[in-house]
Amino acid sequence: MSKKPVILVTNDDGITSKGISALVEVAQEFGDVVVVAPDSPQSGMGHAITIEQPLRLDKVEFHGEFIGWQCSGTPVDCVKLAVNKVLHRKPDLCVSGINHGSNSSINVIYSGTMSAAMEGAIENIPSVGFSLNNYDLNADFTASKHFARIIIKNILENGMPEKTLLNVNIPNKSKKDINGIKICRQAIAKWEEEFDERTDPRNRKYYWLTGKFQLYDEGADTDEWALANDYVSVVPVQFDLTAHHALPHFNNMNWNA
Amino acid sequence: MSKKPVILVTNDDGITSKGISALVEVAQEFGDVVVVAPDSPQSGMGHAITIEQPLRLDKVEFHGEFIGWQCSGTPVDCVKLAVNKVLHRKPDLCVSGINHGSNSSINVIYSGTMSAAMEGAIENIPSVGFSLNNYDLNADFTASKHFARIIIKNILENGMPEKTLLNVNIPNKSKKDINGIKICRQAIAKWEEEFDERTDPRNRKYYWLTGKFQLYDEGADTDEWALANDYVSVVPVQFDLTAHHALPHFNNMNWNA
Repeated sequence: MSKKPVILVTNDDGITSKGISALVEVAQEFGDVVVVAPDSPQSGMGHAITIEQPLRLDKVEFHGEFIGWQCSGTPVDCVKLAVNKVLHRKPDLCVSGINHGSNSSINVIYSGTMSAAMEGAIENIPSVGFSLNNYDLNADFTASKHFARIIIKNILENGMPEKTLLNVNIPNKSKKDINGIKICRQAIAKWEEEFDERTDPRNRKYYWLTGKFQLYDEGADTDEWALANDYVSVVPVQFDLTAHHALPHFNNMNWNA
Repeated sequence: MSKKPVILVTNDDGITSKGISALVEVAQEFGDVVVVAPDSPQSGMGHAITIEQPLRLDKVEFHGEFIGWQCSGTPVDCVKLAVNKVLHRKPDLCVSGINHGSNSSINVIYSGTMSAAMEGAIENIPSVGFSLNNYDLNADFTASKHFARIIIKNILENGMPEKTLLNVNIPNKSKKDINGIKICRQAIAKWEEEFDERTDPRNRKYYWLTGKFQLYDEGADTDEWALANDYVSVVPVQFDLTAHHALPHFNNMNWNA
């Protein structure tokens, strides 16, 4: 590649998170980096877009140095605004994260990090979401950076199949304790909700969403298996949600009641 | 079925919308209906969940009659709260809508209506999202009710394959002008964004998300084709986002750089 690629970096934890700084550092080794990220935490935003309210987009400086653009909207809004109002072109790569916390298995559905990457893929931009299996604001991203470097290099050199993005999850281990990168499928799992019910000072009830992660999949080809066995999991993800295998079932039903 | 089924009705336009009333009327022909829906419009919320704020859940009466529960959160929150804090069991069916506006093709990704149904499916509840191709608050749901009736009856009698839900979109036509129900795949399409840039009274810029729908799919087996040809489109949807067809491609790459 003779010209330096343009790399869009976003996330869902917000522009000031440690994880996005780590990803920016890696991306800068490969190209010209533009950061457009939420101005506040947007975890769990899924593929939300902002249509009931207008969006703000402001330059962010730190110690007098321009570090990127913050957006008042969701991670998906950030990608749309980056392409249309910041870059005025499609970047050569869109990377999202590094998320503070896992986005493996069913979490891909709820994740703002992954939805930003998915929006990139819908725009036909090679896109990757990265997550570290550690929710701590001060998590150590050293190993994550190593594997992000390998994956970004690979995608910039080899490209991405059409209508595909990658969901990368990294074990919370040091580099020497990680066994490598494993291509996986999304494990079958769900959250068992347990709402925490409380009463406010005005005696009205309110609820905090909480829950326990339940894995229903023994496969050694899943992202959960990879993470449990100290591998970086890489799941190719698509945004065609058609359950193609179920089409014959429904075609055989009588719909003319 | 000897016992009446319990049917959860939700949506993303909010509990006072005309579309949810239409769906409640149909559902009541088949079972005991419980409504848990957002207290305000939640269009475009995708699969967002509320984790940064607590949730409210309040009974709603109209003309002294209890009509359901309103929730301060997203459509997905509504399904989670309905199962855990209202029903204390899984309903026999979860229906979402009838949305004011289409959720065909790529819109399934952004749609709160469809994410509520997807959350039902993740909970292993047979789930269907319904949308009418008309954004008007006072849209006519007569034909929609007819087709919702056929589909609900079919699913209650024949069940739903595991890990599958249905995305139903209904043309904005009278019943006699609709040619029937067609099982489809999700068409390849995207939105071409065009942010509407304005300046506020304090001289700061803000942006409204807007755009043009672009169809990149000529297939006669797609939901867009069905709607353009006056069929009700029914797309089986899955929440395993793995791009299974792309696994060999990535397995053949060298990841040990």
